[in-house]
Amino acid sequence: MNLKIALAQTPFIVGDIAANSQQIIATAQYAKQQLHADLIVFPELTVTGYPAEDLLLRTDFITQANNAIYEIAQAITDIAILIGYPEHDGNKLYNSAVVLHHGAIVANYRKQALPNYGVFDEQRYFAAGEQVCLFELNGAWFGITICEDVWQTQIVTQNKQAGADILLTLNASPFHAGKMQQREHIVCEQAKMTQLPIVYVNQIGGQDELVFDGSSFVVNQQGEIVFRAKEFASQLSVVEFIDGAPVLTEIAPSYNEISSDYQALVLGIKDYVTKNGFQGAILGLSGGVDSALVLALAVDALGADKVEAVLMPSRYTQAMSIEDAELEANALGVNYHIIPIEPAVNAFTQMLAAVFAGTKKDATEENIQARCRGVLLMAMSNKQGKILLTTGNKSEMSVGYATLYGDMAGGFAPIKDVSKLLVYKLAQYRNSLSAVIPERVITRPPSAELAPDQVDEDSLPPYDQLDAILERYIERDQTAQDIIAAGFSPAHVQRAISLVDRNEYKRRQSPPGIKITPRSFGRDRRYPITSGYRGV
Amino acid sequence: MNLKIALAQTPFIVGDIAANSQQIIATAQYAKQQLHADLIVFPELTVTGYPAEDLLLRTDFITQANNAIYEIAQAITDIAILIGYPEHDGNKLYNSAVVLHHGAIVANYRKQALPNYGVFDEQRYFAAGEQVCLFELNGAWFGITICEDVWQTQIVTQNKQAGADILLTLNASPFHAGKMQQREHIVCEQAKMTQLPIVYVNQIGGQDELVFDGSSFVVNQQGEIVFRAKEFASQLSVVEFIDGAPVLTEIAPSYNEISSDYQALVLGIKDYVTKNGFQGAILGLSGGVDSALVLALAVDALGADKVEAVLMPSRYTQAMSIEDAELEANALGVNYHIIPIEPAVNAFTQMLAAVFAGTKKDATEENIQARCRGVLLMAMSNKQGKILLTTGNKSEMSVGYATLYGDMAGGFAPIKDVSKLLVYKLAQYRNSLSAVIPERVITRPPSAELAPDQVDEDSLPPYDQLDAILERYIERDQTAQDIIAAGFSPAHVQRAISLVDRNEYKRRQSPPGIKITPRSFGRDRRYPITSGYRGV
Repeated sequence: MNLKIALAQTPFIVGDIAANSQQIIATAQYAKQQLHADLIVFPELTVTGYPAEDLLLRTDFITQANNAIYEIAQAITDIAILIGYPEHDGNKLYNSAVVLHHGAIVANYRKQALPNYGVFDEQRYFAAGEQVCLFELNGAWFGITICEDVWQTQIVTQNKQAGADILLTLNASPFHAGKMQQREHIVCEQAKMTQLPIVYVNQIGGQDELVFDGSSFVVNQQGEIVFRAKEFASQLSVVEFIDGAPVLTEIAPSYNEISSDYQALVLGIKDYVTKNGFQGAILGLSGGVDSALVLALAVDALGADKVEAVLMPSRYTQAMSIEDAELEANALGVNYHIIPIEPAVNAFTQMLAAVFAGTKKDATEENIQARCRGVLLMAMSNKQGKILLTTGNKSEMSVGYATLYGDMAGGFAPIKDVSKLLVYKLAQYRNSLSAVIPERVITRPPSAELAPDQVDEDSLPPYDQLDAILERYIERDQTAQDIIAAGFSPAHVQRAISLVDRNEYKRRQSPPGIKITPRSFGRDRRYPITSGYRGV
Repeated sequence: MNLKIALAQTPFIVGDIAANSQQIIATAQYAKQQLHADLIVFPELTVTGYPAEDLLLRTDFITQANNAIYEIAQAITDIAILIGYPEHDGNKLYNSAVVLHHGAIVANYRKQALPNYGVFDEQRYFAAGEQVCLFELNGAWFGITICEDVWQTQIVTQNKQAGADILLTLNASPFHAGKMQQREHIVCEQAKMTQLPIVYVNQIGGQDELVFDGSSFVVNQQGEIVFRAKEFASQLSVVEFIDGAPVLTEIAPSYNEISSDYQALVLGIKDYVTKNGFQGAILGLSGGVDSALVLALAVDALGADKVEAVLMPSRYTQAMSIEDAELEANALGVNYHIIPIEPAVNAFTQMLAAVFAGTKKDATEENIQARCRGVLLMAMSNKQGKILLTTGNKSEMSVGYATLYGDMAGGFAPIKDVSKLLVYKLAQYRNSLSAVIPERVITRPPSAELAPDQVDEDSLPPYDQLDAILERYIERDQTAQDIIAAGFSPAHVQRAISLVDRNEYKRRQSPPGIKITPRSFGRDRRYPITSGYRGV
């Protein structure tokens, strides 16, 4: 048999069923009329977007999603459409995929493997399906899987045994570094084992803390990739099958780890800011590498005219910090303001003089400075309708080296899941495209500049040690004992772990940020604040 | 058969396996030696505390919890002990209960019904058990269930059919208004239906957003309650069984809805503050009813000497607000400070004059005032090691009538799940015990006092309308159409719902607070921030 299958790696909006339905119809029409496709495959839960979270508990939302299926089926009849939707049956809800053709429902499959780990909560909403579902088109039999299903050999094998010639899979698989390679590896293995060609369509776009990278692909029955869509971009493609085998089409090059992290961050910022209706973004520019990177990311995501920087020096700010911040803003063509924070810091110092009489200086005074900056930035954000981006990295979030309501104030935290060492790599990568971050910003020792001659290493282990310890403790659940046995300094390990343990309360109030590692903070890592557990 | 069963409604610390093990041993010894108990029943997941959340994904934590079982078995041998623990078997984890006696494991039961809704994520961690487990003591056969199990008729019936004479149930059932009555109703029905006496032991204490109210009880085979432990208090009790039937013991009176809400808030504050090692609490006292109630709760939880109030008037603060705030602080014997915020507000106004030139006054200027108060309070919190309590209620959290990093700044939000109307009821209830809140605070129209002559009803529907609409939309998932059909003004309904929909971003950064309703914010209601869903 011969046919053409379209892969709809096109963006959908979580919660907006009406808009998503319209887009399904328009995309399917285009695929039929312009690309001459016989079948179009959309990503998982197309109609609602993914993840719709507790919207799935609302009866009105589910009713609307189920009605949309009939409307779409009526609206376009000359191409077979495979879309995902939350199927309501009796008092159960299924994560389902439906084939619509000639105005009717041709097939309906219920996802069997419901992930309930990491960022996934599917068993909160869905009951599991219990059988495969095949449908016929142009003389070929198609099996259907949904995301997690295709990772399970048993489910892929069931489809083969039931008589599938080709396997279609709808996905909403979020990005983290190396995830694309992992997906392709698994799916190629499944194809080879069952000798089934597999069509893999993934969601594209940022949704709160997740970025869906697209990277849809087709693999033949020998387990070879014959088509790959772009990463981090919307793309409607068509792959031809001749005698049941997919024809070698275009294979988009894959980014390396650093550049794919960078693209994920850009897409995550772009979609959060635009989907939430902000006029643009502002951020505090300190002359340090973190804010320099966030500025570059924001400009690459939104355009220089939508981004505004604010320099807020204090008595502890070195001249080179201001110089470098101005260089960065100018290199990227970004409008900036300089507002020294001394008047507000002095006001608070005087207002608190009586209650603080007889006490010693401590982190309180540093926090006041950070919070004065927070008030200024939020005022500008409120006045202009621009979102405030925070500039804290994952190393800082891990150990609580940040001020709540100070530098942690903001609507979105783009590099919250980026370790300090990765910040440097991403800065260098960005400079390799065009020089926008002064070299000195990358080479000088990092400092919060909240006290005289302060550098981060006064309070924290050196970042090359710290980041490795954090990755082992947070992402790999290693114990202090394990980490020390791997050769790290016991003092550094104990310091890092005890800081992680006792700063959950800060992380709980931090803005959402973009997941780029196998375990980010937020929904991905759910720790109690009140806890007697001590990693050391 | 005759025997005595002890019910250990005693506090455990999430994550602190060593301390919990010691407490199990000490409590069991006391129950044997002083109360002559033959068997002692502890709450669900005793060894780890509940909910231990993602600590359950750590191998070291699970190993320690499993080892603890053997240590406890060795440490106390002359009384049968029923405790809960996360049982590791192969690559699976079970929510289990184990009977220890004479130094050995006598029985091991794996929870069958794993809740994965509301605040519960048990399927994230645990595999489900598949069978009942009976054990014999003093000639009687005991069945075991764990929390959700006992709500399922099928599981209770299985125990009866397998030959149980008495059913024991370990629980970690969090409080919300009416929950105790619901629990007792279900369990009495199960007892009547199966003619099994049931011993129900519940966890006690606050844990982040949850309060476990205790209220352990024993019901006889006629479905009558013959024993009830106190609500919201630690209590080790013993109930005698003669010829297999529990003897009528003490039945603690149950609070009414308002007083049990009040007790839940007091216990929630006490445990959050003390378990997290704070020296005490501070809060901003405005002269309004919300902060008046939080002050009273904090004093009842911690004692007046541990609580400090700060009055921070601005040019918009009425004289009666300051007078009333001082009256409250004095009535409760709380130390207070008065710090006018004008110097900081003026400093920010001047610092922002250039960038704000040509713009109109809007909510930005109101937010600056709230944020100056946030900076002051956080500075005092940091300097003294006292936690800052926020004073926002559920009505405000729902519609976003609060300033991020301003009045939302703080470590804990005691009345975050308390609607405005319930705030009034709780204030009146507290005054009925002793007059601590001036009558005028309860009768005057609520105002944020951030602009001249401002009252809440300028921006929001009247609270009697608003609270009813919010309860229907948030807790009952009704649609705007449903609510209007029930007789509410379409304009009020649309205003309220659209504010709820668009303020998820604020709630996401709010401090944790105490759940007292069937659906609180936080883990209980997981909505996307980026969302095309519109309730109207």
